Amino acid sequence: MIQIQLPDGNLQEHPDDVTAVKIAEGISERLAQQVVAAELNGEIKDATRPIAELTSADEPVKFKLLTDRDPEALGVLRHSAAHVMARAVMQLYEGVGLAFGPTTSTGFYYDFDLDRPISEEDFAAIEAEMKKIVKEAEPFEQFSLPRGEAVEFCEGMNQELKVEHINTGLAAHEQLGFYRQGEFVDLCRGPHIPHAGKIKAFKLLSVAGAHWKGDSSGKPLQRLYGTAFFDKKAMKAYLEQVEEAKKRDHRNLGKKLNLFHIDPKVGSGMALWLPKGATIRAALEDFLRGELIQRGYTPVYSPHLGRVELYETSGHFPYYRDSQFPPLFSHQAGQVVDEILTRLREARSNQAGGMPPGLDENAIDKLAIAAEVLNVDLKDFRAAKSIDDQIAALDEWNAHHERFLVKPMNCPHHCMMYKSRPHSYRELPIKLAEFGTVYRFEQSGELNGLLRVRGFTQDDAHIFCTPEQVEGEFRETLELVQVALKSVGLDDYRVQLSLRDPKSDKYVGSEENWSNAEAALRRVLENSGLNFTAEEGEAAFYGPKADFMVRDALGREWQLGTVQLDYNLPERFELEYIGSDNRPHRPVMIHRAPFGSLERFVGMLIEHFAGAFPLWLAPVQVRVLPLSEKSFDYAQEVAAQLQTAGFRTETDLHDAKLQAKIREAQLELIPYMFVVGPKEAEQGTVAVRDRIDGDLGAMALEEAIAKLQGEVEEKRIRQVVKSEFSGFGDDGDEVNEY
Amino acid sequence: MIQIQLPDGNLQEHPDDVTAVKIAEGISERLAQQVVAAELNGEIKDATRPIAELTSADEPVKFKLLTDRDPEALGVLRHSAAHVMARAVMQLYEGVGLAFGPTTSTGFYYDFDLDRPISEEDFAAIEAEMKKIVKEAEPFEQFSLPRGEAVEFCEGMNQELKVEHINTGLAAHEQLGFYRQGEFVDLCRGPHIPHAGKIKAFKLLSVAGAHWKGDSSGKPLQRLYGTAFFDKKAMKAYLEQVEEAKKRDHRNLGKKLNLFHIDPKVGSGMALWLPKGATIRAALEDFLRGELIQRGYTPVYSPHLGRVELYETSGHFPYYRDSQFPPLFSHQAGQVVDEILTRLREARSNQAGGMPPGLDENAIDKLAIAAEVLNVDLKDFRAAKSIDDQIAALDEWNAHHERFLVKPMNCPHHCMMYKSRPHSYRELPIKLAEFGTVYRFEQSGELNGLLRVRGFTQDDAHIFCTPEQVEGEFRETLELVQVALKSVGLDDYRVQLSLRDPKSDKYVGSEENWSNAEAALRRVLENSGLNFTAEEGEAAFYGPKADFMVRDALGREWQLGTVQLDYNLPERFELEYIGSDNRPHRPVMIHRAPFGSLERFVGMLIEHFAGAFPLWLAPVQVRVLPLSEKSFDYAQEVAAQLQTAGFRTETDLHDAKLQAKIREAQLELIPYMFVVGPKEAEQGTVAVRDRIDGDLGAMALEEAIAKLQGEVEEKRIRQVVKSEFSGFGDDGDEVNEY
Repeated sequence: MIQIQLPDGNLQEHPDDVTAVKIAEGISERLAQQVVAAELNGEIKDATRPIAELTSADEPVKFKLLTDRDPEALGVLRHSAAHVMARAVMQLYEGVGLAFGPTTSTGFYYDFDLDRPISEEDFAAIEAEMKKIVKEAEPFEQFSLPRGEAVEFCEGMNQELKVEHINTGLAAHEQLGFYRQGEFVDLCRGPHIPHAGKIKAFKLLSVAGAHWKGDSSGKPLQRLYGTAFFDKKAMKAYLEQVEEAKKRDHRNLGKKLNLFHIDPKVGSGMALWLPKGATIRAALEDFLRGELIQRGYTPVYSPHLGRVELYETSGHFPYYRDSQFPPLFSHQAGQVVDEILTRLREARSNQAGGMPPGLDENAIDKLAIAAEVLNVDLKDFRAAKSIDDQIAALDEWNAHHERFLVKPMNCPHHCMMYKSRPHSYRELPIKLAEFGTVYRFEQSGELNGLLRVRGFTQDDAHIFCTPEQVEGEFRETLELVQVALKSVGLDDYRVQLSLRDPKSDKYVGSEENWSNAEAALRRVLENSGLNFTAEEGEAAFYGPKADFMVRDALGREWQLGTVQLDYNLPERFELEYIGSDNRPHRPVMIHRAPFGSLERFVGMLIEHFAGAFPLWLAPVQVRVLPLSEKSFDYAQEVAAQLQTAGFRTETDLHDAKLQAKIREAQLELIPYMFVVGPKEAEQGTVAVRDRIDGDLGAMALEEAIAKLQGEVEEKRIRQVVKSEFSGFGDDGDEVNEY
Repeated sequence: MIQIQLPDGNLQEHPDDVTAVKIAEGISERLAQQVVAAELNGEIKDATRPIAELTSADEPVKFKLLTDRDPEALGVLRHSAAHVMARAVMQLYEGVGLAFGPTTSTGFYYDFDLDRPISEEDFAAIEAEMKKIVKEAEPFEQFSLPRGEAVEFCEGMNQELKVEHINTGLAAHEQLGFYRQGEFVDLCRGPHIPHAGKIKAFKLLSVAGAHWKGDSSGKPLQRLYGTAFFDKKAMKAYLEQVEEAKKRDHRNLGKKLNLFHIDPKVGSGMALWLPKGATIRAALEDFLRGELIQRGYTPVYSPHLGRVELYETSGHFPYYRDSQFPPLFSHQAGQVVDEILTRLREARSNQAGGMPPGLDENAIDKLAIAAEVLNVDLKDFRAAKSIDDQIAALDEWNAHHERFLVKPMNCPHHCMMYKSRPHSYRELPIKLAEFGTVYRFEQSGELNGLLRVRGFTQDDAHIFCTPEQVEGEFRETLELVQVALKSVGLDDYRVQLSLRDPKSDKYVGSEENWSNAEAALRRVLENSGLNFTAEEGEAAFYGPKADFMVRDALGREWQLGTVQLDYNLPERFELEYIGSDNRPHRPVMIHRAPFGSLERFVGMLIEHFAGAFPLWLAPVQVRVLPLSEKSFDYAQEVAAQLQTAGFRTETDLHDAKLQAKIREAQLELIPYMFVVGPKEAEQGTVAVRDRIDGDLGAMALEEAIAKLQGEVEEKRIRQVVKSEFSGFGDDGDEVNEY
């Protein structure tokens, strides 16, 4: 006998072979039919297997039935749907190898090893096959085998990947679990629904390439995505919201609204800001520039190139080399010399363990011959007696031949500006601000519209201050980030303060500076009323920092507004100021960027606003719509007055009906339409139409302009449609797999 | 007998051996002593040689005596001073080889072939030696030798360069002229002063490297610069003005006023704009941005990198390769493959004439081996049967490995923006504006502060319009350039219109477009009232253009404001718009930049204004000077009000006397000082001090602010100190040489 504790606390006794379905039958037949799974001691399990097998029997089993009303049941359904999809695919095609078939937060997928490529055109056939399987409503039956038999069993089914997984990923398991549904058997931990008939709604969504166990050098697979629900209505709602998310996709909106363009001919990840997108960016920059000037920042400009030596001083090279664009060499053999040096350095660091593979002297000699063909004088290199001397000879050559990087960071340039003349403590803080573009050589697979690019512009600035000024500057910077976020209506955020690991000694900068700074940062945050968490051990080696974690309308969290203290660069660049004691001191440097990258920020805003930017940012703020050609003159007069008042205005002089013109403006997400006809011309009025609220009636033109000016000045955010779903797509959750 | 016509028209007869000095003696001994040279039939000649030898005798000789009052005489004096300097150098040092020793517009130099380096520390000794020579007042005596004897004579003096010049540059001359002064003899066309005693004032100025006949591969020489005058007072005035020019040098002012900084560690020719310089630039950009928006331009942004393929399409690569930064290769062997390709292409174009030197197959093979070491698969290259196939194999490899240029031009990026979607004629003109930075790999010897840099930002824009719109757009662009120049008070300019050579067929674009465009451009210029000249054959192959040639306060002419029509890029990028006929048409592109490069423009302005920028551009516009600590509060209140009113303001809170504070502000060229003490605090006034006009007395603060606002709004230019000298330095004028 087994003891069962119901959710209300009552205890029941049942025979050892009792299942959740049987317990439900004891209550009502109807309930038994609704059972999807059971929660036993907090874990989700099969409803059709003996509870005693699924639990340890020492204590009464905490028992809860899961029906289609329980959100936890949806994952079980979807995992079973993945099995049904796999069964259908195997019925349709020959030689299907099964990999993994987990659920995601919104559906499921299954990875197949299959020569025949599956395309969206095959979905209907697969779905039809699945429909048949669902209709037959065959049960999911669990059984276990000892490892030897399990391997034999999988070999018998020609499922090599399963065999491999048993031998590697599951090497510690003595018994392996399987599920059978009709003729289909899969190595699987479960749980599953009682029978396939529970899958009332399902749909295949997409197909993509994948690799065995996610390793890009592993076997290439085809990943088929789908989703499933307990009823058709829920699935329809979900699919509509997926559609909404696609509509919000900044890459689609960016194209539809002509905001930006990325072209392989210009370069992957190189964004061209088209007039409308550039207008949004310029409005953000203008706004921020004004805020900066009020706070004593001064503009600076630096070139997008810097000599490699500059980044050697800063430490950004070669440390971050892999994520940077490669250097640009002024000498035709620069790259070859660089390659020889790289190999020599690798050889030196590997000397203890012998010459590493691929670093043979033969290869270096071939490169050296090429360098000589390219007019490099290698006498000193040839004469060198050791790797160290060889490296020294090439370093010497390099010192006389310029190498540049497209800048990965703005800070070294700003350090050189600070260093260009002596400073007194009276001048501090010095705050150098630049919309500075930096370049990172992201992998092409990681690029994503404006959100992940290879060249992006930071709203960057560096504050050079005394240690005593850190607290005040940090306070002001936090306040600035808040002002910046408020300007676009982002008000759902928390601050993450990253501090030292008190047990580690990896940190640059004096103990005194660190403890004072950390205390000051805490004090400022505590007094700010901001929601913040402090995390020890999260600081970079060069200083503590604070990040704003901001939630957008889609519920996604973005790391924006970063404030980073830096004790390292002032040291590396030997920056100084003369203190009131007439002696030289090291300034503290603060890196900060309220928006972060303008590319990423605007990309995020496009999705946050679903393309419908608030008035102060909208690329076109007002469109004047004349009723007919008779009102063209007045329309142009109205447009001219709007332009004089500073509004980005268009006039629709097409020969079209008013309704068509309104529809067009609505589709282009233009915040206001001023409709004008003979009556308006006579009275000097406009019929104001609001994209959100529709017709607002006639107003005197000055009144309408004043209304809009108020909205711009306040930076009013009138409408952000929040999505109810958070986190679309594949989150790689493999809970159902071993 | 020879007939002489005096300046008053009177004729005289003289014996054949008469000299200018003898004619002067006939008038007065005093006049004879003042004679420096003679003008004979409009040519300047020696005063001590028989006039008959210096002229052809058919007509009466038009005769004019030149004394130290005639400006033409100064060049003769300076050339003689160059001989005196050379004589002094030869007396001091062994083995001096003589090259050329011409005059410049402000002095003279002599190029010496001399192992011992001459430095400024040697100037005193050389000047002392020259002083002795001048004191002895020995005459300059001319004589001629037939070429054979002349060569022997120079060989006897060990003057190899003179021998070479006789054999090459003077190969057509049968008789060679020489001048003797004491033991010093020089191959020279003359003329010279009668004797060295006329050199009343001289000074050595500098020493620099030079090359024989200005060819950088020619023999290296030392060039010694000096100047000379007829009296000490004139020299003093000149040296003061040189000092003034040095003071205006934007590199010195840029450092003194903290405007910009160029650091070898960042890169030669890479300007860092420091806060004050950046403020001037930002003010210019803001102003221009406003003007552009009014004229229907839209902002765009593009990255500073582009794929090499983009510039192959535009034609900027490899055509301008030598003046560009080298490409940046994403593959570690990119540069080697590029080098093999370059050599193969050169080999192909030289195939008719055999393999050119340095392009042997052996070298290419060594490079190919290196490429293979660097993981390039060269199977196809190895298998290729011809150079063409080898090139094709490597081109194919290149197509799969990204190569980038730091952009040499903004236009290709803007073309790609235009091309990112279809256009209707209704949308044209489209005007894309960007402060776009471009990079040119200038030779390091040619770099000059902000005036010649390797990375510079153009106030660039591209207008895409229909052929019919060219006239209107050109008119508006000319007007915009005038507005831009007026904003900084540059009002002395002419327009140079460059048109086709009607006899050539090198031009891209239809005959109809060209003739319509040229006629339209002419029409616009004729109606504009601008001073313009049309020059046939000066147009680029891709379109006619207009340049503004602007004269600055130093009298130098700068090519600013360029407007360039382009039929080529729309063709190469296959740009289109759909016309009213519903068919595709090619737009015309107009490149234009009113300021040109912001680096060069601001560099020029620094010298034009001698660092004293007009109020609207001044980095600090007002400094508030409290009389003492008692008035600090009021001073800060005044400063706050100035800042609110939009003024860049500083407050001088040093513990110093008012006079010292005023001196400091004057030295920093700050346009206005507001002096405040207890009286001003009580009355709400400020004592306004103008950098130019001094004390303007007390004003109510609002009144003072309004006065300054008026000056900013008008962009008033109150003071440009024009220099009387035009064209300092070496203009390479070698009139005295053969």
